[in-house]
Amino acid sequence: MFLHSPLKFPKKKLEIMTDLKAALQEQADAVEDVLDRLLEEPEGPEAQVVKAMRYSALGGGKRVRPFLVVMSSRLFGVSDSSAQRVAAALEMVHCYSLIHDDLPAMDDDNLRRGRPTCHIAFDEATAILAGDALLTRAFEVLAHEDTHADPKVRCELVAELAKASGMNGMVGGQMIDLMAESRDLDIPEITRLQRLKTGALIVFACKAGAILGKTGEVKRHALRNYGHDLGLAFQIADDLLDVEASVEETGKQVGKDADRGKATFVSLMGVERAREQAHILSEQACKHLEVFDKETELLRAMAQYVVNRRS
Amino acid sequence: MFLHSPLKFPKKKLEIMTDLKAALQEQADAVEDVLDRLLEEPEGPEAQVVKAMRYSALGGGKRVRPFLVVMSSRLFGVSDSSAQRVAAALEMVHCYSLIHDDLPAMDDDNLRRGRPTCHIAFDEATAILAGDALLTRAFEVLAHEDTHADPKVRCELVAELAKASGMNGMVGGQMIDLMAESRDLDIPEITRLQRLKTGALIVFACKAGAILGKTGEVKRHALRNYGHDLGLAFQIADDLLDVEASVEETGKQVGKDADRGKATFVSLMGVERAREQAHILSEQACKHLEVFDKETELLRAMAQYVVNRRS
Repeated sequence: MFLHSPLKFPKKKLEIMTDLKAALQEQADAVEDVLDRLLEEPEGPEAQVVKAMRYSALGGGKRVRPFLVVMSSRLFGVSDSSAQRVAAALEMVHCYSLIHDDLPAMDDDNLRRGRPTCHIAFDEATAILAGDALLTRAFEVLAHEDTHADPKVRCELVAELAKASGMNGMVGGQMIDLMAESRDLDIPEITRLQRLKTGALIVFACKAGAILGKTGEVKRHALRNYGHDLGLAFQIADDLLDVEASVEETGKQVGKDADRGKATFVSLMGVERAREQAHILSEQACKHLEVFDKETELLRAMAQYVVNRRS
Repeated sequence: MFLHSPLKFPKKKLEIMTDLKAALQEQADAVEDVLDRLLEEPEGPEAQVVKAMRYSALGGGKRVRPFLVVMSSRLFGVSDSSAQRVAAALEMVHCYSLIHDDLPAMDDDNLRRGRPTCHIAFDEATAILAGDALLTRAFEVLAHEDTHADPKVRCELVAELAKASGMNGMVGGQMIDLMAESRDLDIPEITRLQRLKTGALIVFACKAGAILGKTGEVKRHALRNYGHDLGLAFQIADDLLDVEASVEETGKQVGKDADRGKATFVSLMGVERAREQAHILSEQACKHLEVFDKETELLRAMAQYVVNRRS
């Protein structure tokens, strides 16, 4: 009875959040090191494109996706060094998508992670090439034997990351987003858009551990579902931040959706219902983790974190 | 003695060129079919990006790279169906690079293969995404088990294509090209630029057969060298066409290098020496094929063709 005292729970929760932040930082540092090594500047004038790649891929971001790769991998006893290479490849894909999304022909953003976007710091041509080269390098890293001893696993990682990021995944979602500028979407349509645009990479991050650990369908499916709900909660929280947070907090332009008159979860549902929905999804995400007998505390804490973050 | 009569040889050469053109057309049709199947339009508004991918990847081009993949594969008894998937993936990468190179921020071209470039026919944002998705799809196709039964071979294809097309390959070459706008390059620098920018993918095309056929270093190296010399000959011929051919013949803008005051093989060596150099490289390419006891007539004919083509 004493264990369930009202004072005990909030303290425990606070401790877990402290653990989460420490683990998130630890993995952010680890993926930074791996990216640093994988993006080595060559001799010759082509070093310029690698400078732009490094500018956009290093030194920033919450590194939520790398964290998810490493934590899902630990559930199956996969080595951190293996998981961190997959995490770095995934982060390269994420960063390439940010570079291209920020281009004048796309979202035309000049601020990202509190710094000028890649095409502002360099130029448009270099930014296009830097994005292209990050995407390409990601697949090279996954296919390399250092990522996993079993080539079948490596092929699966390549195929799954390609699916998640290509025409039926992230790029498809970005296309829907562009098409939506001429017509407002409804909630099911926005849900589908976000499932492709941001959800697919988050789902890949969560499934990566299952692929590396060669686990069965049940656990793989559980991680997929966790990633699905987490991804949607993450996006709704992002829409809320665009309405409620400041440039200083987020390090990027805010209020852009409203300025463009673009339909979002928040514009369609209202702030309160959107926040509620994000919390429901966060709890639902945690439920999927119940099939694991192993420690899933940090993954559950992450589901809390994504809906409560201020940046 | 009669066999070496001066009349006999030109006739034989003409026959081989006819055979080459038939084989080139046959493989162009085959890769077109494979690309058509691999670039299926999805339901939903994201179909738009696939329309742009199909616009740029289907219905055009000489398909030199696919031809090289299939012919190098036949040297090792690799099935055409396997080789044609690799050929299609490579052609996706080639087409993505053309879409991005043609963008206003890059070469700002409005004509390609006799038709408006992708960003003219669609818009810039869609063209950027179409390029991204073609690159991504290429790796997905290579990693799929239909490409080769052995996952180690598939991983090697992914890694080698990524190397050839990324920051130390094609994208690196494109970056050098952009940097060259502020400073004229000399012949060794242009050679290196072209080895990366166009040579690396042609070398991959030639090596692909050796990878699929799991052959030893000697034969793989011979194909690499053949591809290296062929690629350079191809590029010099391209520079010559930019000076000598018409828009109608090439289906793209000509005279652009001179308009930009850009140093090329032709501007540095003169038309005659450049043409001579192209023919020397073409002959040198054929020499590398002597290690094969199998029929390499079409690959040798291709080395002739690239320096004599009018488009």
